[in-house]
Amino acid sequence: MGDTVKRLAILGSTGSIGQQTLEVVRALPHRFHIVGLAAGKNIGLLTKQIDEFKPRFVYCQSREVHPANAEYELLSLEDIARHPQVDIVIIATSGKTGLSPTLAAIKAGKNVALANKESLVMAGEIITNEAKLNGAQILPIDSEHSAIWQCLNGETQPAAQLILTASGGPFRHYSPAQLKEVTAKQALGHPTWQMGKKVTVDSATLMNKGLEVIEAHWLFDMPFENIKVLVHPQSIIHSMVEFIDGSIKAQLSHPDMRFPIQYALSYPERLSNPQLPRLDWSRINNLTFEQPDFDAFPCLKLAIEAGKKAGTYPAVLCAADEVAVELFLSQRIKFIDIPNLVRQALEQHQVITQPTLEEIMAADAWARQRVMQLISGDNL
Amino acid sequence: MGDTVKRLAILGSTGSIGQQTLEVVRALPHRFHIVGLAAGKNIGLLTKQIDEFKPRFVYCQSREVHPANAEYELLSLEDIARHPQVDIVIIATSGKTGLSPTLAAIKAGKNVALANKESLVMAGEIITNEAKLNGAQILPIDSEHSAIWQCLNGETQPAAQLILTASGGPFRHYSPAQLKEVTAKQALGHPTWQMGKKVTVDSATLMNKGLEVIEAHWLFDMPFENIKVLVHPQSIIHSMVEFIDGSIKAQLSHPDMRFPIQYALSYPERLSNPQLPRLDWSRINNLTFEQPDFDAFPCLKLAIEAGKKAGTYPAVLCAADEVAVELFLSQRIKFIDIPNLVRQALEQHQVITQPTLEEIMAADAWARQRVMQLISGDNL
Repeated sequence: MGDTVKRLAILGSTGSIGQQTLEVVRALPHRFHIVGLAAGKNIGLLTKQIDEFKPRFVYCQSREVHPANAEYELLSLEDIARHPQVDIVIIATSGKTGLSPTLAAIKAGKNVALANKESLVMAGEIITNEAKLNGAQILPIDSEHSAIWQCLNGETQPAAQLILTASGGPFRHYSPAQLKEVTAKQALGHPTWQMGKKVTVDSATLMNKGLEVIEAHWLFDMPFENIKVLVHPQSIIHSMVEFIDGSIKAQLSHPDMRFPIQYALSYPERLSNPQLPRLDWSRINNLTFEQPDFDAFPCLKLAIEAGKKAGTYPAVLCAADEVAVELFLSQRIKFIDIPNLVRQALEQHQVITQPTLEEIMAADAWARQRVMQLISGDNL
Repeated sequence: MGDTVKRLAILGSTGSIGQQTLEVVRALPHRFHIVGLAAGKNIGLLTKQIDEFKPRFVYCQSREVHPANAEYELLSLEDIARHPQVDIVIIATSGKTGLSPTLAAIKAGKNVALANKESLVMAGEIITNEAKLNGAQILPIDSEHSAIWQCLNGETQPAAQLILTASGGPFRHYSPAQLKEVTAKQALGHPTWQMGKKVTVDSATLMNKGLEVIEAHWLFDMPFENIKVLVHPQSIIHSMVEFIDGSIKAQLSHPDMRFPIQYALSYPERLSNPQLPRLDWSRINNLTFEQPDFDAFPCLKLAIEAGKKAGTYPAVLCAADEVAVELFLSQRIKFIDIPNLVRQALEQHQVITQPTLEEIMAADAWARQRVMQLISGDNL
């Protein structure tokens, strides 16, 4: 491969994944070059990133980052994503913001390193079809999907089963009474991974794992029946694949998002990066496993069911969850209200099968409105 | 691949690996056809196998299996190994008997499924060079090497480190005083794997793991410094590979030799075999790891050192160990005398570097004689 330099655009550069992507680029400057940066509201950090990485294209939701002597061009997310000077688009935005630029990049035939869960959950069929049509590759950045992708590497036959591991979140083994009293502060104290607030709460409810099951379904063309979730609190094994002969491959590393980020960027090569921590087997005595508690964490089941029912249900799931998590973080609802709100939104939704993008967006808007009505009507 | 039928010759068909290979063939008769069987002394079992599988070629050390109306041809091990009607030769003999037919098969450009450790340990350089010259592939049957081979599948860059797992044997955590009193009966009670007597004792001394380190060195062209041994008593993870980016892949399965046997035979395909037990993650709560105890089990270090020093040392290691294990099984020496005898043989050996096959055989003969002299001289 020589030492090709890949030109990257990071959408969501000031978020957790965006910052860690820049750490990988900083460690491997001879292999990666930043040509585009995009952020929402964190102008201070974006300005620093622009100073350091000198991108040619910038997007900022609040357009105050454009000094008179700027050496970059302000573009929309979509225009950065489809720009001819970009080799890989890293979609590190949260929520549905990622969907439109993901599609723009894929339609331009670009490889997309995807950390944004909502895109695939809401519009998995549209995205994977467009990727096939346009020869674009989706490079997963989630540690679980990266693990599965690595385990499938070199295998010529479909997998028999995907086993997604889950940390179990900070409230594993909590009683129903304890779960009722969970605070936002507790939910944000996730034990192993460094992540944004929304993902951290989703990890605590196991909604995050449910969304990952839906993503795995689309990324690896695997029936839901053959995707299992296994709780593994140490987060060392990032997921596993069982093959038709019963042999299983697992991918392991120190729990650090820079591993899957770097693999997505360097694929099909692997690159040596001394800054990434190695697993020290003299300190790893014990890897434990347990079955997920579907009763205590109803979001997992809600997500898998929404994925199976397909149509606009996954969009409603995502949107209702996003609003519910915001309400929980602003202390307007309790932790256990999150699955209740999501369930009600799903139950009340009139599904559209094989929806267009517009119909998906309409379902999203409907679900957001519905959740707000549900809490203002006090009918939880 | 369609449904190609591969024609197999099993050398050592009445041993543990040979019998398990036939179980795989029995389960997948549309994919594998037995054309050759070879055994040492177990005429009763060989006769049954001949009746069932109707091979065209047979070898038996004691030539009493040749009835007047036999429909097979009696051939030497080498002639079976190189026969044009054989696609894969399974070397499932124990000890140095495997070496000559292994070379015969490789020189005929045949793929060799290798369960015999001694061949690669004694003559790794000769065998791997001949395999390259003749376009023959060595398909490892050991669970550890099969695991590494599966983890390397699809990777285009050399591995950074191989991590061979070891059950630790039945005497893990034994005190020096306890090790002194170990009996042959105890040593043969290996906890997880179904194996022959020699391999079972070698597993108890960890000599087996040392031999596997040498094999891994040759099979995967990996410096000894980058091959680690990790004790993993459950024998679920069969080995791991660390790549240059710090990511690790592991291969897992129920501890059953039919997995690596079948993979070697079906490679590059995987085949569904309902008779192979699946891992049940609702029953696996805990995978544990610890560092090997080099002091309590000196054979491991002796083997790795002999491998590093190379030349005729590994042949001396193998031969001295084989004689010492026989002496232990016949209760003429103690368990802890095994490493002592091997160490003395290695210390007293005049090494030949880059030896010919004849020089390897001479070193083997010397070591056997030397160990017998050592015990008759009572100078342990």
